[in-house]
Amino acid sequence: MYDVIIIGGGPAGVAAGVYAGRKKLKTLLITENFGGQSAVSADIENWIGVKKMTGLELAKMLEAHIRSQKDVEVKMPEKVNKVIRARNSFKVATSKDTYQARTLIIVSGSSRKELDVPGEKKFKGKGMAYCSTCDAPVFKDKIVAVIGSGNSAFEAIIDLISYAKKIYLLSRSGLRADPLIQEKVKKSSKVTIVYNAEIKEIVGDKFVSGLKYLDKKTNKIRKLAVEGVFVEIGTMPNSEIFRNLVKINTAGEIVVDRKTMATSCLGVFAAGDVTDEIYKQNNISAGDGVIAILSAYNYLLKNKKL
Amino acid sequence: MYDVIIIGGGPAGVAAGVYAGRKKLKTLLITENFGGQSAVSADIENWIGVKKMTGLELAKMLEAHIRSQKDVEVKMPEKVNKVIRARNSFKVATSKDTYQARTLIIVSGSSRKELDVPGEKKFKGKGMAYCSTCDAPVFKDKIVAVIGSGNSAFEAIIDLISYAKKIYLLSRSGLRADPLIQEKVKKSSKVTIVYNAEIKEIVGDKFVSGLKYLDKKTNKIRKLAVEGVFVEIGTMPNSEIFRNLVKINTAGEIVVDRKTMATSCLGVFAAGDVTDEIYKQNNISAGDGVIAILSAYNYLLKNKKL
Repeated sequence: MYDVIIIGGGPAGVAAGVYAGRKKLKTLLITENFGGQSAVSADIENWIGVKKMTGLELAKMLEAHIRSQKDVEVKMPEKVNKVIRARNSFKVATSKDTYQARTLIIVSGSSRKELDVPGEKKFKGKGMAYCSTCDAPVFKDKIVAVIGSGNSAFEAIIDLISYAKKIYLLSRSGLRADPLIQEKVKKSSKVTIVYNAEIKEIVGDKFVSGLKYLDKKTNKIRKLAVEGVFVEIGTMPNSEIFRNLVKINTAGEIVVDRKTMATSCLGVFAAGDVTDEIYKQNNISAGDGVIAILSAYNYLLKNKKL
Repeated sequence: MYDVIIIGGGPAGVAAGVYAGRKKLKTLLITENFGGQSAVSADIENWIGVKKMTGLELAKMLEAHIRSQKDVEVKMPEKVNKVIRARNSFKVATSKDTYQARTLIIVSGSSRKELDVPGEKKFKGKGMAYCSTCDAPVFKDKIVAVIGSGNSAFEAIIDLISYAKKIYLLSRSGLRADPLIQEKVKKSSKVTIVYNAEIKEIVGDKFVSGLKYLDKKTNKIRKLAVEGVFVEIGTMPNSEIFRNLVKINTAGEIVVDRKTMATSCLGVFAAGDVTDEIYKQNNISAGDGVIAILSAYNYLLKNKKL
């Protein structure tokens, strides 16, 4: 029986794990990989304290830190398939085994929705981007495309206006963003909006050099020369397997009390991108991971389980 | 007129500043120094991503990161004396000048209450400690004293039981901690409680080797040989000059909406140890600093001030 099982190996999971180790909790961390969504980033300049590094470097830093905690057992790569609530504890079934703990920290992150077209995977970190707050400065004086129709696409454009030379917004099904942000974007001479555009392929050699889209009005394939593509068509929290355990909102995010990171289920805490945190950012996830594990520790103490 | 003035240079302030720079906000950061309270720590092993460093190293990392942001002006060392609310903006008066901004981020931290006895300053980071969550592992197999009577003193002992060989709790005025945690501490054979003890001096050569206290019952000075002293007599948020601007709770902490870090005053956000955050930890402060600046950015956008 573990004191705590941490499900996930991004910044939130590693933060929770490091603190769990220091509090001498009997801890198991299960993850498919380290570093979270940023592991594929080419350039990270906003992990506080580090001016510049790659996503892989962040992943390695996080892995080294958690592996330095002797009281934390790490199972990687291992996928959690199911969580069952037992009497005063939780059973976690993975692809390899079943484990039991008094408390759970869910830090399973989220997945950016992808275009799922040829070329997208090949150019990840080589022109394909999924986070404007993270990557806009990389595209200084470049021509970029933003794919999407909602607020996040327009927010990406606002971020890019300060850096990029030219920005195309490609919308498939009409604009859904708030009028105010649309108005602001449309004022910029840098921005051109392309309607009825369904992305078909990302092209390039070593880096992105353009994209092909279907113009749904004329039913013709068109080409657009761009040096970067920001995909802003939404995210999916990795919360599906926890649906019967904790309260989840309509966006699929786990609802937490932001003072303690407690979920609706006693003994279960969550942090990072899988939660209803407004801004999904690495440092916020790390901080919230610390809150979650300290709350789990207090919960164990209060219930005389330590 | 700045878009934002950030008051403080700890993890919360630097996090807010780095994101402000990336969002191209016209930003001023005013601080007396960098690194916050941890700057004096001998060993930091819980800054996520870094296995081990000194407080000075953390302070240098933070300073280097903020100074790499070209759009962020830094005034250091400079002390903020007063903040005045003007029409749609705020005036910040320092020891040297007066500045004006549309939004404020208050990240002025807190100060641990100190014993204010001879030897205390000399042995800071050399046996004198003020944060058990941070420093307990440093005192493995050592004899330590915890000074205090409330929950934080007892929480420090719980942290230390896993590491220290022997723990003395010195209480001046009787125990005030919750019965449950007292019970748990009193069960440990490692712990001895000394009542009516008023600390008079910390002694040692290069490191702490003991302390002197007045036994108030017998009115005699007694000596105790210890290798570490944890002072847990409370903290004071550095919120005094903001009292007329934002809502402050009875503990002197700025009350924030934890989803956005908004204070009671429109356009003013706060993060880190100066707020009513339950756990005061560096990574939580950094994450909350990111939330605060992203909320300030949204506020500026929404009010058409960008």
